[in-house]
Amino acid sequence: MSIDIAFTKGHGTGNDFVLFSDPDGEVTLADAQIAALADRRFGVGGDGVIRAVRSERLPEGAAVLADDASAEWFMDYHNADGSAAEMCGNGIRVFGAYLLAEGLLDLAVGETVAIGTRGGVRQLSRTGDGFEVDLGPFVVAGEAMVSARRLDVARPGLAVGVGNPHVVVALADDAELDALDLGEAPEVTPAPPDGANVEFVVPGAISGELGRIRMRVHERGSGETLSCGTGAAAAALATRSWAGAGAPDAWRVQVPGGELGVRVADTAEGLHVFLSGPAELVFDGSVTLEDRVSR
Amino acid sequence: MSIDIAFTKGHGTGNDFVLFSDPDGEVTLADAQIAALADRRFGVGGDGVIRAVRSERLPEGAAVLADDASAEWFMDYHNADGSAAEMCGNGIRVFGAYLLAEGLLDLAVGETVAIGTRGGVRQLSRTGDGFEVDLGPFVVAGEAMVSARRLDVARPGLAVGVGNPHVVVALADDAELDALDLGEAPEVTPAPPDGANVEFVVPGAISGELGRIRMRVHERGSGETLSCGTGAAAAALATRSWAGAGAPDAWRVQVPGGELGVRVADTAEGLHVFLSGPAELVFDGSVTLEDRVSR
Repeated sequence: MSIDIAFTKGHGTGNDFVLFSDPDGEVTLADAQIAALADRRFGVGGDGVIRAVRSERLPEGAAVLADDASAEWFMDYHNADGSAAEMCGNGIRVFGAYLLAEGLLDLAVGETVAIGTRGGVRQLSRTGDGFEVDLGPFVVAGEAMVSARRLDVARPGLAVGVGNPHVVVALADDAELDALDLGEAPEVTPAPPDGANVEFVVPGAISGELGRIRMRVHERGSGETLSCGTGAAAAALATRSWAGAGAPDAWRVQVPGGELGVRVADTAEGLHVFLSGPAELVFDGSVTLEDRVSR
Repeated sequence: MSIDIAFTKGHGTGNDFVLFSDPDGEVTLADAQIAALADRRFGVGGDGVIRAVRSERLPEGAAVLADDASAEWFMDYHNADGSAAEMCGNGIRVFGAYLLAEGLLDLAVGETVAIGTRGGVRQLSRTGDGFEVDLGPFVVAGEAMVSARRLDVARPGLAVGVGNPHVVVALADDAELDALDLGEAPEVTPAPPDGANVEFVVPGAISGELGRIRMRVHERGSGETLSCGTGAAAAALATRSWAGAGAPDAWRVQVPGGELGVRVADTAEGLHVFLSGPAELVFDGSVTLEDRVSR
């Protein structure tokens, strides 16, 4: 039996997703079918596949609703290989734009909605030019040495945890950043037990309350990407830590695929980091997925 | 002013295209708009963009119609960077499947239609499981030495011209083919004046009238690809030449993206090489192209 799927393709700073809606949780795709959908040549193509489903219609939704009964929608996120993933900082913004476009959500600029994810409930706010998501608490601690192709000598890196592990390395200038060859994974010593995304940053001018950074990222498992949401947050948090007392709490992070905002702010649950940026829906389509995927 | 485009995405052995129909030649896209359409993350994504337009509605169509008045449809092919290209052996099969699906062409299995291209008129035949295209005459002549990453020593290559230049290198076995690193362009000595696609082949068993080959290809300008139609033809022609007198005229060429057929046959214009293979339409979509493309 084949399945017809109406989908929308979208991206956040070049991190791209195939989104489809299944409010009542009736569409169960095999990992191989999701991978076929995400295949850039034989399928639709994307870094991930996102299904919009009501939290109450998913086993994983029970914990989400227990935590926040208002989390009507669950972001069922899968990586391009079909495996399920907890959260995606760029993906959840595009998910918000998709819910709005499909009429599944009513959210005015400035308003916030709770979204269910496998990583727990996330608060997503609509901004004037996109969305902002509360990524939760963070940890900035731990040093490591990082070497990479076309980097003359190993540099010190700072470990940052934002739900997932990162190591952030400061470079001297744009020329050094541009010269980097991230076609091969940077080497981190001591090696983090579960690996880490590595962000190379060039801190820019701090003007008043706002800091600026340029960044390139190597994601574990994916290689160099155009953008990594939690990576941008980690880069800002590390740079803020290096800047010391009086450093700004608001940062603009330029990634190869665009620009992201990072903000540190107090919440009822302590200090949290927030990620903001654009969410673009590019095109609508329909595809027939075969029950048996041949490749 | 923005333009709405209804398109179909398709591929031939993993070589993928965005196709749209503009029978009366009313849609003129800037190179930057075509490149935006072909962008895999910010657009729809593909190796090329193909517009179906009536030959009589294009300046380039006059020469085509003078050569063959039956060439109603012109394959307006552009590379992913927006530049116009002459011909594409995988693309023209997918173009045939698209014309049929859109009801722009009526072609039974076994029938042949003339298609206009910037490289001249091509005869396209519908087969039981795809299409076959007459690639025209060919030249097998010229030696070169080829070295590549993970190839122990330089190997002799045979130059083959099939409209565009190729150098074909025979390897000993599958292990040697699999070990090749084509992340970097192979080095050809003496260097062909306009560069060349380089095919590495492992000749397989010849059973009666049919020869078999496995092939990987590095395309000039594109790097390693899943498939190259003219490359498959060149690989079969070189292997046929090495096999000498009594070699088969029909070959099956296994590429990373699937399998292609190559056939050498006499025509009214002398010996021609024919390429056959599948043509898959994957999904339909609609996209709005902005007049000004920002990236």
